[in-house]
Amino acid sequence: MALTDGVLAIAITIMVLDLRVPASRDWQAIRPAIPLLAAYGLAYINIGIFWTNHHHMLATANRVNGRALWANLFLLFWLTLMPFVIRWIGLAGVTSQPVAAYGVVTVLAASGYIWLERELILAEGTESRIRAVVGSRRKEWVSFALYGLGVPAAFFSPWIAIVLYIGVSCVWLIPDRRFERWHSLQQSDANAAPP
Amino acid sequence: MALTDGVLAIAITIMVLDLRVPASRDWQAIRPAIPLLAAYGLAYINIGIFWTNHHHMLATANRVNGRALWANLFLLFWLTLMPFVIRWIGLAGVTSQPVAAYGVVTVLAASGYIWLERELILAEGTESRIRAVVGSRRKEWVSFALYGLGVPAAFFSPWIAIVLYIGVSCVWLIPDRRFERWHSLQQSDANAAPP
Amino acid sequence: MALTDGVLAIAITIMVLDLRVPASRDWQAIRPAIPLLAAYGLAYINIGIFWTNHHHMLATANRVNGRALWANLFLLFWLTLMPFVIRWIGLAGVTSQPVAAYGVVTVLAASGYIWLERELILAEGTESRIRAVVGSRRKEWVSFALYGLGVPAAFFSPWIAIVLYIGVSCVWLIPDRRFERWHSLQQSDANAAPP
Amino acid sequence: MALTDGVLAIAITIMVLDLRVPASRDWQAIRPAIPLLAAYGLAYINIGIFWTNHHHMLATANRVNGRALWANLFLLFWLTLMPFVIRWIGLAGVTSQPVAAYGVVTVLAASGYIWLERELILAEGTESRIRAVVGSRRKEWVSFALYGLGVPAAFFSPWIAIVLYIGVSCVWLIPDRRFERWHSLQQSDANAAPP
Repeated sequence: MALTDGVLAIAITIMVLDLRVPASRDWQAIRPAIPLLAAYGLAYINIGIFWTNHHHMLATANRVNGRALWANLFLLFWLTLMPFVIRWIGLAGVTSQPVAAYGVVTVLAASGYIWLERELILAEGTESRIRAVVGSRRKEWVSFALYGLGVPAAFFSPWIAIVLYIGVSCVWLIPDRRFERWHSLQQSDANAAPP
Repeated sequence: MALTDGVLAIAITIMVLDLRVPASRDWQAIRPAIPLLAAYGLAYINIGIFWTNHHHMLATANRVNGRALWANLFLLFWLTLMPFVIRWIGLAGVTSQPVAAYGVVTVLAASGYIWLERELILAEGTESRIRAVVGSRRKEWVSFALYGLGVPAAFFSPWIAIVLYIGVSCVWLIPDRRFERWHSLQQSDANAAPP
Repeated sequence: MALTDGVLAIAITIMVLDLRVPASRDWQAIRPAIPLLAAYGLAYINIGIFWTNHHHMLATANRVNGRALWANLFLLFWLTLMPFVIRWIGLAGVTSQPVAAYGVVTVLAASGYIWLERELILAEGTESRIRAVVGSRRKEWVSFALYGLGVPAAFFSPWIAIVLYIGVSCVWLIPDRRFERWHSLQQSDANAAPP
Repeated sequence: MALTDGVLAIAITIMVLDLRVPASRDWQAIRPAIPLLAAYGLAYINIGIFWTNHHHMLATANRVNGRALWANLFLLFWLTLMPFVIRWIGLAGVTSQPVAAYGVVTVLAASGYIWLERELILAEGTESRIRAVVGSRRKEWVSFALYGLGVPAAFFSPWIAIVLYIGVSCVWLIPDRRFERWHSLQQSDANAAPP
């Protein structure tokens, strides 16, 4: 789905639009841009995680019906709000409200991702390859829970929430056994295809 | 057509660019952004409807000639003006002129959609699969009429126009028998293709 | 080439970003936006012409080598400057300098298009299908000349230049015999392919 | 990968967004925009080099695994920061700090490119076609070194750094024997494929 790639590409790049350019020549002039740069880095990794998983999942799916398209649009809607929340963090600093809002947006994006996964499996049947590849979906639910926890946690301390959000990134960046399984499935397919 | 996906992706995301970021930490600071957020939500759903239908229609079409490309560009032109109208609603509030302008833009987009549908059918002949899938095109004309009614209605009360626009969304979000028909056609094709 | 579609999609949509939103509710408040809206309409049609031709040309080409990629990047460079020129017209009105600048940008874009066409033909040989489809390339050179004439003409009167630019649009919007030839070629190909 | 094309398309076009439009009609009014226009031209060529090479490399690759996707996202992250650095040069002029920052961003992008190349080769094995095409990767390391040298050089004189950056462009714009090798490989493949 080129729309997904297009939306993510723009969501990523318009975050850079909001980086305030230092007017003077000093390195110190770049300092006020640093919290926003860091927030941009974190959001970039989060969108990257959504994208790589989305990419793998759709490469495995054979059918995309109307309901899956809407689940995908729901997911994208929340991802398009990310630059808005990042800008808020950039303006208001690492404070409770914008950090909680970041949690709200990501937890809704994660629910969109889980919904999309579910629609793709429903369309293909529980015996399908995508069902086998996706497995127990434990990681998705752990991420969902951590993002969700970030919302109330941000009111105790926004830094606890940020640790939770970074935790989700670590969960996904650590190499994943499911993908290896997927690659071996893919390879056996490739071997099976030509003859 | 990757251009369509690109244009829609950008039309969607640049609407977010105009969301004014609250400068303070308060939740209440987010309040002035709410009408614009709601308008964004509605426009997002409208663009989503155009996109999913466009996606299904082109998946069924076998030929895209020069005239269909121009019908598509006409459709996209009006969709690119959506962020402009949404920004106007955000600035001037739910008042007659901008709400009527939203109707003008969507009715012209809808006419572009109907034109595109017509060109695709003309290119393939009335006995073609796309003709059978599209059917009587009643929904398209109902949407066209409701968007069109929204323009004068906005001068009585902008809220009546908004109810009409939401009505169009409901017409399309309710599951559609045509797509089921299309899926069964597609499946029988898939069964027919390999041997 | 998805990059082309992406760049054109953005060039089209960021022109809308510069449309100043009327702050009041009046229709008259929309009046200062009208010259920019008209300039946007003209630029949209021009980009549309580049895109549909580009689309047809690449659908016919079998090979895209490194030199064609650079010809394409050269073409896109000038198209990305279009929003800049349109904004200038919006600010300074229909005056000599910005209208001439529009001519400079389009004539350079047209030369990029002719260069790309040449590289694609060179890559495939003069006996190739793309050579046959493209034909004498008279239209390309006429457009090139009219855009080029617009530059000095703008200093006599910017309106003469605008008439020339609209003339180019008419040349391309009138149905084209080459495409019909291409379609019949394509069909005979399609007939030839399965057996 | 449509995401790459999308991100590059946007990175290219949003640089134009920052070009300040002259408010008066004079040609001289365009003068303050010239350093930014020149910086845009240079950055455009640099992104064009990354893109054409990326395009060729992925056309040769048969497998893209999770690690290659992340290498690609790392590369894109630094390219998305280019408009930010270009804007800084536009505001602060050709001075040491922004020109050095341009070097930092490009050297990190180049390291992302080398990482991506390495992952693609690892995924396919050292006997693979991509390994043969890429060859000794001398050009990549020379570019990496020149961009890296630009960072300290900018503190002596920003103009030395700019000469180094233009030097990298020349290294890549000069026709490349590897691509010819690649084309002949591709052709022999094409000959081999049908039977």
